[in-house]
Amino acid sequence: MTIKLYDYWRSSAAYRLRIALNMKGVAYESVSVDLHPARKEHQSETYKAINPQMRVPVIEVDGEVIGQSMAILEWLEETYPEPSILPETALDRLKARAFADTIACDVHPLNNPTVQAWLRVEMGQSDEAVSHWYSEWIQRGFAALEARFVQMDGDFLYGDKPSIAEITLVPQMYNARRFNVDISAFPTLNRVDAACMDLEAFQTASPEANNPSKN
Amino acid sequence: MTIKLYDYWRSSAAYRLRIALNMKGVAYESVSVDLHPARKEHQSETYKAINPQMRVPVIEVDGEVIGQSMAILEWLEETYPEPSILPETALDRLKARAFADTIACDVHPLNNPTVQAWLRVEMGQSDEAVSHWYSEWIQRGFAALEARFVQMDGDFLYGDKPSIAEITLVPQMYNARRFNVDISAFPTLNRVDAACMDLEAFQTASPEANNPSKN
Repeated sequence: MTIKLYDYWRSSAAYRLRIALNMKGVAYESVSVDLHPARKEHQSETYKAINPQMRVPVIEVDGEVIGQSMAILEWLEETYPEPSILPETALDRLKARAFADTIACDVHPLNNPTVQAWLRVEMGQSDEAVSHWYSEWIQRGFAALEARFVQMDGDFLYGDKPSIAEITLVPQMYNARRFNVDISAFPTLNRVDAACMDLEAFQTASPEANNPSKN
Repeated sequence: MTIKLYDYWRSSAAYRLRIALNMKGVAYESVSVDLHPARKEHQSETYKAINPQMRVPVIEVDGEVIGQSMAILEWLEETYPEPSILPETALDRLKARAFADTIACDVHPLNNPTVQAWLRVEMGQSDEAVSHWYSEWIQRGFAALEARFVQMDGDFLYGDKPSIAEITLVPQMYNARRFNVDISAFPTLNRVDAACMDLEAFQTASPEANNPSKN
């Protein structure tokens, strides 16, 4: 089975998948779809024929093109169970998925470029108002997550290695920094992020390492 | 193990959990948290002490209170595997989870009451503008989902019984109707919704069947 990942180096949902594929050592073919407003390759006829929804990331497996990064993470876990990206106990798996979904459902969707465009164009919001919106949802989500780990000892959230929780956290931390959101109030999240970025699977998945213009 | 569900009859994320619990025949204790603006029980000191995030649904198991309905669905599936709420093959499970996440990540978060409040209060948007926003994300998401099933024969999306896809679809259909969103352009989704509502697990999970003022 060959996995093709339609990817964009700055997409944080694609970044999740790159981390998980690297952690599991699964080879994949990356196809860059340049979402930059000056190029908009996702709106090209070529890409529309591949993915009518014009989004990344999607994977192509067995001739089918399927999106939604969190669903793809579960499929990767089922298809390549070792090493696992889920904690050992059912209760910890619940907590790790809930941590991940706090980002994937409560933070990330609100800051999607499509949503920002609606706020600007349809609702006439200024850059400042959109920045405030962007920052607000990250800070609310991160505050809830930070509160759960005030007494954490180790480097990682659920056990002695990263799980789906870190796979979702690290790309959101990248987004926060990219858009100058103040995340200094979240020392534990910053510490976990730094511990992950010491690992090769995270380093080689990073936006910088996947920026085609740097290759 | 006793499961306590902090529930609100009109919360569509809680509705997902009621359906899954019913499908699996898992007994649970329902604690109603009235989110109605006139009562706001989720902001009471009592509820804050239980769930500092002040959201529903959450479940309480083994003395721990944990939110995020999609994570809880996966935990229910792991803990009570039969009957399964996931399709049989890995590829169908991927597709069903991707269907569900199109609603849980691309539609539902944008229409959360907290988000609507931000649009009104911080961004000065009118009721009309907020209704348009609400409708827009449902219609975009449903259009993408409808397109996948134009040639469907059976009653359900992935196999001969409802899965996580229907568990997420039906409450979103309810929300669409409740807020007068035109969903006539989605005949397949309407047909699947109707087939689900013929089943007792869905009927007894419905908002109407869980409205405390009707009891």
